[in-house]
Amino acid sequence: VNDRLSVMLKRAVMGETVAIAQLISALEARVAGSDEIRPELYEAGGHAHVIGITGTPGAGKSSLVNALVAEIRRRGKRVAVVAVDPSSPYSGGAILGDRIRIHTPLDPGVFVRSMGTRGWLGGVSRATIDAVAVLDAAGFDAVIVETIGVGLEIADIHVVNKADRPEADRTAAELCERIASSGVRNGNGWQVPVLSTIALDGSGVSALVDAIEEHLGWLHRSHEMDRRQRESAAARIRAIAKELLVARLEDPSNGVAFDEVVDLVTARRLDPETAARRLLWPKTNVVG
Amino acid sequence: VNDRLSVMLKRAVMGETVAIAQLISALEARVAGSDEIRPELYEAGGHAHVIGITGTPGAGKSSLVNALVAEIRRRGKRVAVVAVDPSSPYSGGAILGDRIRIHTPLDPGVFVRSMGTRGWLGGVSRATIDAVAVLDAAGFDAVIVETIGVGLEIADIHVVNKADRPEADRTAAELCERIASSGVRNGNGWQVPVLSTIALDGSGVSALVDAIEEHLGWLHRSHEMDRRQRESAAARIRAIAKELLVARLEDPSNGVAFDEVVDLVTARRLDPETAARRLLWPKTNVVG
Repeated sequence: VNDRLSVMLKRAVMGETVAIAQLISALEARVAGSDEIRPELYEAGGHAHVIGITGTPGAGKSSLVNALVAEIRRRGKRVAVVAVDPSSPYSGGAILGDRIRIHTPLDPGVFVRSMGTRGWLGGVSRATIDAVAVLDAAGFDAVIVETIGVGLEIADIHVVNKADRPEADRTAAELCERIASSGVRNGNGWQVPVLSTIALDGSGVSALVDAIEEHLGWLHRSHEMDRRQRESAAARIRAIAKELLVARLEDPSNGVAFDEVVDLVTARRLDPETAARRLLWPKTNVVG
Repeated sequence: VNDRLSVMLKRAVMGETVAIAQLISALEARVAGSDEIRPELYEAGGHAHVIGITGTPGAGKSSLVNALVAEIRRRGKRVAVVAVDPSSPYSGGAILGDRIRIHTPLDPGVFVRSMGTRGWLGGVSRATIDAVAVLDAAGFDAVIVETIGVGLEIADIHVVNKADRPEADRTAAELCERIASSGVRNGNGWQVPVLSTIALDGSGVSALVDAIEEHLGWLHRSHEMDRRQRESAAARIRAIAKELLVARLEDPSNGVAFDEVVDLVTARRLDPETAARRLLWPKTNVVG
């Protein structure tokens, strides 16, 4: 085990902002020793309330996240943000939130991190999964993950932001109808609320945080939390496996050069499936 | 090598419709012997002009494909269609095109096949790749692959279908502007045309087939064809590798049960990355 990483993890677990930022960067860069530190990192977590915020570009996600952070902090909780939206105004290198609109640059109870979308597969990248794990281990009560979304799925809570716009009421009414007619949540006991906010002046944000906390209570009471944690573990394993695979496929130390196999397929001297098998499992299952 | 498959392939290469349909089904179902027949299948092909048709739902893709088939056939060529659009009106089991609007049910020069979207990864599934290979080996001059698309990328040829609608001219003008301002094709010599068609009465379809043929000529002259065939081989290998991987991950004969690993990650006794490595490469790289 890399001693430097081990010390970094201990400091991160104690909530030291610089160590948290360094550990996220080290895992993102996959420095030597990352794989060895990961089991200890995951063991240290499991307590944070992870909140996903998704929406189409222009919906005002980052303003809303900003307002949520202020409100959660006001309630005495430590809160971190992982922004995976490439259009998000958070700066890539910011470790103290000082270049974003959250006005708490020196507050160790707030942490903001922007993630690249490189290696994005299946919604959440390996680096994002690791960053959430670090923030969880570092004892943040809430970790907000902001991602760009397509806006098709039914979420746990729907928010119509920019509620002062003329079309906002109609949008909220349509959302209510769509949720009611979908019947998605029928039977499991959670009534999906549609809330209105004006992130820029904070209207409705306190009610939104109330709803998020109420939802957390329901997750525990209904044992839906257990089901989701299992589902999320499976989804993470699949996402990471795909990233590992893509890296492995084109890694020359693999023993079979990707380019050579592509040449053979292009010349029709090898079919694509045999080529794929040969790259995935160089020593087995090779035919042709 | 499976004798039945071997005979099926020989008959398919001779253009026998029933054998073509059976071979596509056999490869889709991954019957025993599929992997052994694939090298021979791919060697037999490489001659068809593969034409991708994509567009948003409701754009009239299948009507246009129908009109294209009629026009290509009129020019004395054999043409096959692989429809991967789940909203496409082609029937799933049709092997002679008799349940679609292509009015050539007994013409061996036309073949239509709908593919399921199950296992859809990275745009084109393994089964679709195999189906195109069968049709190519069976000597079709043109193979049209119809897929649902998001309509964001610049294609080789743009078509505004339903050109009799009032907004069609404006749509075409906007498309021309967007293509000109994107500069995507600058320098490689192909001027992306924007054509107008009315698929239902055949207007503009002959000009579209002319443009497709002209584009094929340019692909060869400019050596863009070589570059694309290589790129396409690489994309196919990656897509197939991902499908093989997903199957492998959850295959109990893998030696490591997916569910057990998910349990360990849920309990935080294993981190997701180590779990993914253990599933991908059971005998190597296991940490933790």
